[in-house]
Amino acid sequence: MKLLRCGPHGAERPAMLDAEGKLRDLSGIVADIDGAALSPEGLARIAALDPTTLPLIEGTPRIGSAIARPGKFLCVGLNYADHARETGKEPPAEPVLFSKATTALCGPYDDVEIPRGSDRTDWEIELGIVIGSRAKYVSEAEALDHVAGYALVNDVSERRFQSERGGQWVKGKSHDTFGPVGPWMVTKDEIADVQDIDLWLDVDGERRQTGNTRTMIFGVAHLVHYISQFMTLEPGDIIATGTPPGVGLGMKPPTFLKAGQVVTLGANGLGEQRQVMVQA
Amino acid sequence: MKLLRCGPHGAERPAMLDAEGKLRDLSGIVADIDGAALSPEGLARIAALDPTTLPLIEGTPRIGSAIARPGKFLCVGLNYADHARETGKEPPAEPVLFSKATTALCGPYDDVEIPRGSDRTDWEIELGIVIGSRAKYVSEAEALDHVAGYALVNDVSERRFQSERGGQWVKGKSHDTFGPVGPWMVTKDEIADVQDIDLWLDVDGERRQTGNTRTMIFGVAHLVHYISQFMTLEPGDIIATGTPPGVGLGMKPPTFLKAGQVVTLGANGLGEQRQVMVQA
Repeated sequence: MKLLRCGPHGAERPAMLDAEGKLRDLSGIVADIDGAALSPEGLARIAALDPTTLPLIEGTPRIGSAIARPGKFLCVGLNYADHARETGKEPPAEPVLFSKATTALCGPYDDVEIPRGSDRTDWEIELGIVIGSRAKYVSEAEALDHVAGYALVNDVSERRFQSERGGQWVKGKSHDTFGPVGPWMVTKDEIADVQDIDLWLDVDGERRQTGNTRTMIFGVAHLVHYISQFMTLEPGDIIATGTPPGVGLGMKPPTFLKAGQVVTLGANGLGEQRQVMVQA
Repeated sequence: MKLLRCGPHGAERPAMLDAEGKLRDLSGIVADIDGAALSPEGLARIAALDPTTLPLIEGTPRIGSAIARPGKFLCVGLNYADHARETGKEPPAEPVLFSKATTALCGPYDDVEIPRGSDRTDWEIELGIVIGSRAKYVSEAEALDHVAGYALVNDVSERRFQSERGGQWVKGKSHDTFGPVGPWMVTKDEIADVQDIDLWLDVDGERRQTGNTRTMIFGVAHLVHYISQFMTLEPGDIIATGTPPGVGLGMKPPTFLKAGQVVTLGANGLGEQRQVMVQA
């Protein structure tokens, strides 16, 4: 299933795509695409429906973040060996973990703000894991049981705020609109192999990132297991799993986003995003 | 006003202290001590009440986190010059910022878990700022207008997870129960000078930390202003403002918490906390 949210920012309603790719209204079935809907019970309830019996959503409404605001928006850093190298760092011995403020969450086609005082706003296409059930101290073998599905994430980052402003990356990862998620969350049953997903990102139509999740240093199951040793994951939590090579920071010379530029990105099975950069 | 939450974990109801220090039930007035209740409108509604007209809560119920789970649980690092020195670091040129998973939030008298594999679980008494209205790009002069009040926080920390596990402090700050908040949130009108609050913390009755918020490197108004340059603060968000000297990491030799030990802490106007350490 492909679950999504549409409508004005802050007033999205839950929806799903039918077999023809049309939007079907889920608001009579679940309150939102949130922890309750993403739990095994919630997903089973939606899966039991015939989507063609749900109200059709007409027109082309705004698409919001695929997931309602979660408790956690975690990110893994330097999780592709090639990307670690382009940033000048050694591949990590264990996952690098940081967080993004959940206020950064936005829709896949929303404008992305360049923060005031920023001269290093950068892009990062990532596979996002969406948690489906509570995970604390779970083994790698059982980790995927706690995953509801996957969504495309652009982990927008301000490199100077991240690394030159006195510490901890959260500063450069948390500006409003720095977390486009969607267009949809696809349930894990529709992804044949989560460690074989192609990822691509363009800036103004020029290819910047190309990758595949098979080159991740730490795979999805390990990440869920690993993170659950440090904190409890809950349904609806999002984990962005790191970005393949090709970020602006790694270009020679380093190249960053300017107002008016357009970022497009996509991944097989996860859909596509498009963001216009605007000045905050 | 002193606002708090009482009842079983996950099922707390909102309450306030009356002039005699008795618990009065606010659940007929506000849904929870959350962003809506902490907004200027929410606080004005509570302030207009005569607390003695509210139902008395009998007995001694568990006290939960003073604030319902917020969107953000941010923390400032190394914000007392003496504490920065005891950790072997120079005082920072601008605030060090990190986050704690909101799942770490717990009540002031709840047991605190020592994570599996931990040998460096440490204490950190802190003044917590509670946000009352949306703050994005606010000036230092207007910053305090966005504060609802203050609460006592123990920023429990696992030092090895924080600093020796491949990066970003969030790993060592986010274990369940690593964020006792309360017993109450006191509205800012009851705090004569937020930069003159005494703080103390004992382990098994021995004084470990003594400090006063006047020795903060970056004061409350500056912190709210500063953080709002990087992300949007919302009503209910909590900012722990750093700890004074006396943490276990700074002792000679470094000394950490063991199961069965008892941590007590307090601050004038903010009440006291008491936690028994247990093994996760």
